[in-house]
Amino acid sequence: MKNYADRLLSAIEQKHSPCVIGLDPRLDLMPDFIRMNVEDKPLADAIRSAITSFNHEVIEAVNEVVPAVKLQIAFYEQYGLPGLHAFEDTIRLARDFGLIVIVDAKRNDISSTAEAYANAFLGRTNIFGQLKAIFDVDCITVSPFLGRDSLIPFINACAEYGKGIFVLVKTSNPGSVDIQDQKLAANSEPLYRGLAKMVDDCGQRVIGESGYSSIGAVVGATFPQQARDLRRSMPRAIILVPGYGAQGGTAEGASACFNSDRRGAIVNASRSIIYSHEHQNISRDDFKKVVRLSAEKMTSEIVGALPLAMAAQ
Amino acid sequence: MKNYADRLLSAIEQKHSPCVIGLDPRLDLMPDFIRMNVEDKPLADAIRSAITSFNHEVIEAVNEVVPAVKLQIAFYEQYGLPGLHAFEDTIRLARDFGLIVIVDAKRNDISSTAEAYANAFLGRTNIFGQLKAIFDVDCITVSPFLGRDSLIPFINACAEYGKGIFVLVKTSNPGSVDIQDQKLAANSEPLYRGLAKMVDDCGQRVIGESGYSSIGAVVGATFPQQARDLRRSMPRAIILVPGYGAQGGTAEGASACFNSDRRGAIVNASRSIIYSHEHQNISRDDFKKVVRLSAEKMTSEIVGALPLAMAAQ
Repeated sequence: MKNYADRLLSAIEQKHSPCVIGLDPRLDLMPDFIRMNVEDKPLADAIRSAITSFNHEVIEAVNEVVPAVKLQIAFYEQYGLPGLHAFEDTIRLARDFGLIVIVDAKRNDISSTAEAYANAFLGRTNIFGQLKAIFDVDCITVSPFLGRDSLIPFINACAEYGKGIFVLVKTSNPGSVDIQDQKLAANSEPLYRGLAKMVDDCGQRVIGESGYSSIGAVVGATFPQQARDLRRSMPRAIILVPGYGAQGGTAEGASACFNSDRRGAIVNASRSIIYSHEHQNISRDDFKKVVRLSAEKMTSEIVGALPLAMAAQ
Repeated sequence: MKNYADRLLSAIEQKHSPCVIGLDPRLDLMPDFIRMNVEDKPLADAIRSAITSFNHEVIEAVNEVVPAVKLQIAFYEQYGLPGLHAFEDTIRLARDFGLIVIVDAKRNDISSTAEAYANAFLGRTNIFGQLKAIFDVDCITVSPFLGRDSLIPFINACAEYGKGIFVLVKTSNPGSVDIQDQKLAANSEPLYRGLAKMVDDCGQRVIGESGYSSIGAVVGATFPQQARDLRRSMPRAIILVPGYGAQGGTAEGASACFNSDRRGAIVNASRSIIYSHEHQNISRDDFKKVVRLSAEKMTSEIVGALPLAMAAQ
């Protein structure tokens, strides 16, 4: 199994884009042509079909531009079983287009339960005596809140199956200060710095030929100062950067997550790309053009901000 | 909509049991009669049917003994879509038996994504212009790691639909010390105490006639000393207590989570109840007897430990 960090970095290099497009379905924001195509179907089929075909359009629009897509599973769960069928359909589609598939699930639990989550997304489940891959994506986001032991089953799956995780270190929302920024009595350092050290340490086991680890971190584009700090605390971690675009993070903010080799991060945008059409009655062709242009514009902005970040270091 | 805390406490009173049974499917641990009933079916049907019928047996065995069941969603996700269909089937079954349904999902995310999770489990999703209930359970577990703002969509759903959440405060695993026990520089108090204050504060909005809030907390039976502390820090929160049984928590440990009114907590056991049969070739009738006895024994132990806890306070 090829190391995940190596696979991701080579896909980024091949596309000349350190960007990932979020496939976050919201039926109320999709163009009319999606809805019109499903309105004669039974409700469950209509939901599944609308989400899958919307994602299909987006994947067709962006697959030559970016190396990866990120599925925020909450937006599928909110549509119940039909949404989760569409989640599975979309993973298959994205893989057929040669894209790296990241699931933003922020999962975690203790011991055998964490192992069940790792089985579901990265590893294999024992089904009547046979080990079977289930959702089988490249990478998922994981919460560190339950402590280091809760990360072990995921790291084992990464090592065994060439997969990756991004551990939440500093999220992009204003409330991330409540817990993640708390200074610890032991060393007067913010908790996020301790988390970064944990990520760095856990990641040593799965470092690829690129020098990067399959154990990455989530650091929001909305906190560039903390991002510079965190970039130094875990030099071998690839950082998944949310918060660019709709949440107010800038390309300069995101660039703080890159190393001086212009690698080591991948920036996500969801709403600002896939819902960038101004009118819901847009045609299918125009929708794809708009989405592709938005993805290209994002890539230019992020890549354009990189040399500035290097100069500042 | 009746307040969730009131509904849960009155169900506990009616059954004379502050216990919840975890429905955590593991095909490899189920009795042979479950597997034999599905072996002629296609794989997806076999998985769904095995899980649903196993849960049906357990629910029939325990529904007169305990007020609630807890579904650990990781154990369903690890079986993919068939597992998640069984998850939905089980919720419906448990509700038909008049049980309170708690989903242990440890979900959370930021802003509109947290709202999507709240919609999925507690609230309503906008589907083609109509608000629809999706999994529609009574209560889910939620992670506080992303901060106070991430809890708001869940609290809104609790207030609007008579639902509840249990916020992770001190989990039952050894690694819970890594982050949750960190002393903060601001006040030299462990993080978990700050989390308990946040739970207490957020909970004021949804206090029922019982005096308890629909915003509860998770505190492991494996840390009785911390549990006594936390019990005092959030007097109106109902505590969901994992870690009893297979994880080594005792009835005395669990009793530390109760208030002096002998209320305010509900203790979970999963493996030690539903996989308490010694041989996999047990008959269907004997399996149900064993499970019912295990649930009754647990209830006796927990209820028996309560007066001791009261005397110690």
